[in-house]
Amino acid sequence: MMITGKNLIGNQLSAQGDVKFTTFNPLLNKSNDTPFTEATLSEVNQAVNLAQKAFETYQNISGVKKSKFLNTIADEILALDDELIQTYCSETGLPEGRAKGERARTVGQLRAFAQLVEEGSWVDASIDTAQPDREPMAKPDLRKMNIPLGPVVVFGASNFPLAYSTAGGDTAAALAAGCPVIVKSHPMHAGTGELVASAIIKAAEKSEMPNGVFSNLNSSGITVGEQLVKHPGVKAVGFTGSIKGGRALFNLAANREEPIPVFAEMGSVNPVVILPKALEVRHQDLAKTYAGSITLGTGQFCTNPGLILGIKGATLTTFVDELAKETVKINPGCMLHPNIISAYRRKKDDALSQPGIQMIGDYADGVKYNFARQTIATVDGATFLKNSILHEEVFGPYSLVVQCENEKELKEVINHLEGQLTGTIIADNDETINYLAVVEALKNRVGRLIFNGVPTGVEVCPSMVHGGPYPASTDSRFTAVGIHSIKRWVRPFSYQDWPNDLLPKALQNENPLNLIREVNGTLGRQKI
Amino acid sequence: MMITGKNLIGNQLSAQGDVKFTTFNPLLNKSNDTPFTEATLSEVNQAVNLAQKAFETYQNISGVKKSKFLNTIADEILALDDELIQTYCSETGLPEGRAKGERARTVGQLRAFAQLVEEGSWVDASIDTAQPDREPMAKPDLRKMNIPLGPVVVFGASNFPLAYSTAGGDTAAALAAGCPVIVKSHPMHAGTGELVASAIIKAAEKSEMPNGVFSNLNSSGITVGEQLVKHPGVKAVGFTGSIKGGRALFNLAANREEPIPVFAEMGSVNPVVILPKALEVRHQDLAKTYAGSITLGTGQFCTNPGLILGIKGATLTTFVDELAKETVKINPGCMLHPNIISAYRRKKDDALSQPGIQMIGDYADGVKYNFARQTIATVDGATFLKNSILHEEVFGPYSLVVQCENEKELKEVINHLEGQLTGTIIADNDETINYLAVVEALKNRVGRLIFNGVPTGVEVCPSMVHGGPYPASTDSRFTAVGIHSIKRWVRPFSYQDWPNDLLPKALQNENPLNLIREVNGTLGRQKI
Repeated sequence: MMITGKNLIGNQLSAQGDVKFTTFNPLLNKSNDTPFTEATLSEVNQAVNLAQKAFETYQNISGVKKSKFLNTIADEILALDDELIQTYCSETGLPEGRAKGERARTVGQLRAFAQLVEEGSWVDASIDTAQPDREPMAKPDLRKMNIPLGPVVVFGASNFPLAYSTAGGDTAAALAAGCPVIVKSHPMHAGTGELVASAIIKAAEKSEMPNGVFSNLNSSGITVGEQLVKHPGVKAVGFTGSIKGGRALFNLAANREEPIPVFAEMGSVNPVVILPKALEVRHQDLAKTYAGSITLGTGQFCTNPGLILGIKGATLTTFVDELAKETVKINPGCMLHPNIISAYRRKKDDALSQPGIQMIGDYADGVKYNFARQTIATVDGATFLKNSILHEEVFGPYSLVVQCENEKELKEVINHLEGQLTGTIIADNDETINYLAVVEALKNRVGRLIFNGVPTGVEVCPSMVHGGPYPASTDSRFTAVGIHSIKRWVRPFSYQDWPNDLLPKALQNENPLNLIREVNGTLGRQKI
Repeated sequence: MMITGKNLIGNQLSAQGDVKFTTFNPLLNKSNDTPFTEATLSEVNQAVNLAQKAFETYQNISGVKKSKFLNTIADEILALDDELIQTYCSETGLPEGRAKGERARTVGQLRAFAQLVEEGSWVDASIDTAQPDREPMAKPDLRKMNIPLGPVVVFGASNFPLAYSTAGGDTAAALAAGCPVIVKSHPMHAGTGELVASAIIKAAEKSEMPNGVFSNLNSSGITVGEQLVKHPGVKAVGFTGSIKGGRALFNLAANREEPIPVFAEMGSVNPVVILPKALEVRHQDLAKTYAGSITLGTGQFCTNPGLILGIKGATLTTFVDELAKETVKINPGCMLHPNIISAYRRKKDDALSQPGIQMIGDYADGVKYNFARQTIATVDGATFLKNSILHEEVFGPYSLVVQCENEKELKEVINHLEGQLTGTIIADNDETINYLAVVEALKNRVGRLIFNGVPTGVEVCPSMVHGGPYPASTDSRFTAVGIHSIKRWVRPFSYQDWPNDLLPKALQNENPLNLIREVNGTLGRQKI
């Protein structure tokens, strides 16, 4: 298909505005050709009104039909074939292998949600039958299940044009829940976004979904996003990106007349604690492994290990040198966009200009435009504790090794960290038992604890938590990855003494959907 | 025991401040004797610091021990015996029967949470085992469970001194989750609050819980509450009360450097839709039933039916007259406090002074101080739609009957309602099918739908939803009543490739707690 540069308001292409922008190819260091038209306020309103209208029917569509819709989206994304891969690469500077891997992840997520809603037990049906003779008062019949919140606005991530964007985890979860979705397309990959959006619209038509179940709006600034979040018809927001952006949307949503939930997955430095014995035994291997993790995807992962914590000593000094050498050995990678690389340089320069911080290792000369120079720096624990600038994420292939005086200072450093997506403990199995207080401290700051691994790589499975205490996310009670992320977009709903034939199928006596339900406290597929 | 009027900071009585206040006996129309000392900022900080310290151990205490703690709280509340009942009555004007009923509910809630955490499966353990040979990448071992958020601040409700206050649902759920609790005691029943707080402290000592797992702070104003919500050591807030109060706390929490979740259960008018055939057949019975529901507890329930919707006609006019007559027949009841009755009078006068509203029925003369005159008013649908003052809750024995022109206007009225805890449909079984659009509209505005009943009476069971779209609550994704309310105070947490012997018992291969877990997608008590 042809990328039009227009917005998709339900199944209609629309370009009412005058403001246009283009995407950028960082590898060629030049703008791509297609002009994208910014959505206007009128188009924002149309998209939300259509989503509200679509919600009236979409909220009650069967799991089987939603499943078909989600699987068809996956099919249509695959059918975009090479055009999608080439557009993706031209808008990100990322290699084809990465594009294909991310497409597989996106399709896999859609199919996982399809399976979830086809089976149907995710609605957490719970039934307490009546006891009319109970004393002193009759007990009514109560039946509960999850129902969708309403139209959801999704802000895609610059660093995951497929898996965390247009048809990414937020969108897949919201559509699975029964919520129409309006995507505020990421301006850095607006072409990729439009291709995927067109696949969703095609799938919606093929599966006979109501028009307005999905819309895609272009915008290179913040206005369209603000208009969407403030619109009374919008009932929840999903966001992946910077702390600044996520917090601004959270504040807008909290200040609405009707506040709405915002699940924002934001920055993280993903602290890695290397315990002394493991460092002693494996410092060379660790330097290699971590050089790879720090530079993976040119450091553009939210789980990038930006902070390594150890206890002072000759071995830690050796490790820092080895890590710097191994990191510098790796060929510099292209970053997503000139704005991303300039932010990387600015944040890194900010950090490196702080007193007491030391940059380690040498860099190859002549790193190309839009390519990032990998950087390892080090600082002692006391300096780190005093200077919150050093706690901030430097988005890119950068990591800071903090050399703590002793275990006490290590714990103090952890206790003073902001909330994180992940924390990692590198240990010889038998030494962990001596550092349980360190592990506990780390547990209180993160959403996921990794043992002897790297934080990069977020497995999509039910037991994954991708989220964590603020500012890793705006609400640590939910995960952004895996099927349980559907819980962000639903609310429990109770029927009291409702006639069986008027109940949703999930709650009827005969259990026609054969769901696992909690009936008078017992889980099972029983009928009543 | 003796009511001291002091704060409880962990197990220490404390009264560092100079400001004192007393509670009020509305039946005797005079202040009670005991002076209560407002907590100071220093005491607030002490309570939070102690709670943070307690959290370090309390978060990992076994379900069996937490269960014993919760059951002992229930025992100690019962052991307060008549002193508790008399104090309750003297601070509320409510009858002994209500006090005992509410105590039973409170004790029942504590025991339900005790059972929940003793069994243990509430942590929603989920395990995805490793696939080291998976292509293109090895799959790690991931294990997830719910863990507590940290110290929780609870604001009790004026209208439920036991079941929604000091040891009420919020506190019981938070303690069950593993969160220390600091209660901002309600000033109208500070004596009842202190008695219950002392029972909790006694139980904590008997069950060897860490000091600081519970504190109780007195305050007659808003300062202490604000200080608590703003304290960085506090990780979540539970509130039951007015929209104004709940929203103020929500705003404070959202504006913190680290925003924290506030679950506030606030106002609701609990719309009741009477469909034409049911009205025709049962108007007399309905008038009696609803007169009872409107005046129950002197209308001081959050599920009080404050709004009745019907379609214009002679029968609806008859019903309004019958409802007014039946309501006036009932003896006026005493309200909780002079502030409550003056707010009732003010809100009612506000409503009744709006153009187009009509007060129905006659009132007995000589209603005593602090006793409420029951009121039924009526208005047509168009007037109601135009005037949002008529949508507001009048907390007390008041209900407004809206006479809609037709089904279309009825739907419009429902669509323009704010979020509600409950909605009720009164119907002849076979007529509901003709009003499914009305039912759908109501469903989108409420947390619980009742069929042919009254909204008053909130059964405590797993299938109950007590919550709803804003402003019924600040987050419709949770319920305030029933065991699932524990989800407000926990977050999912993942361990990746963690050694089996270092995992929490809930996630170990051997399933030593014999929990129901999701293992590679299958629910069951299986070992690995």
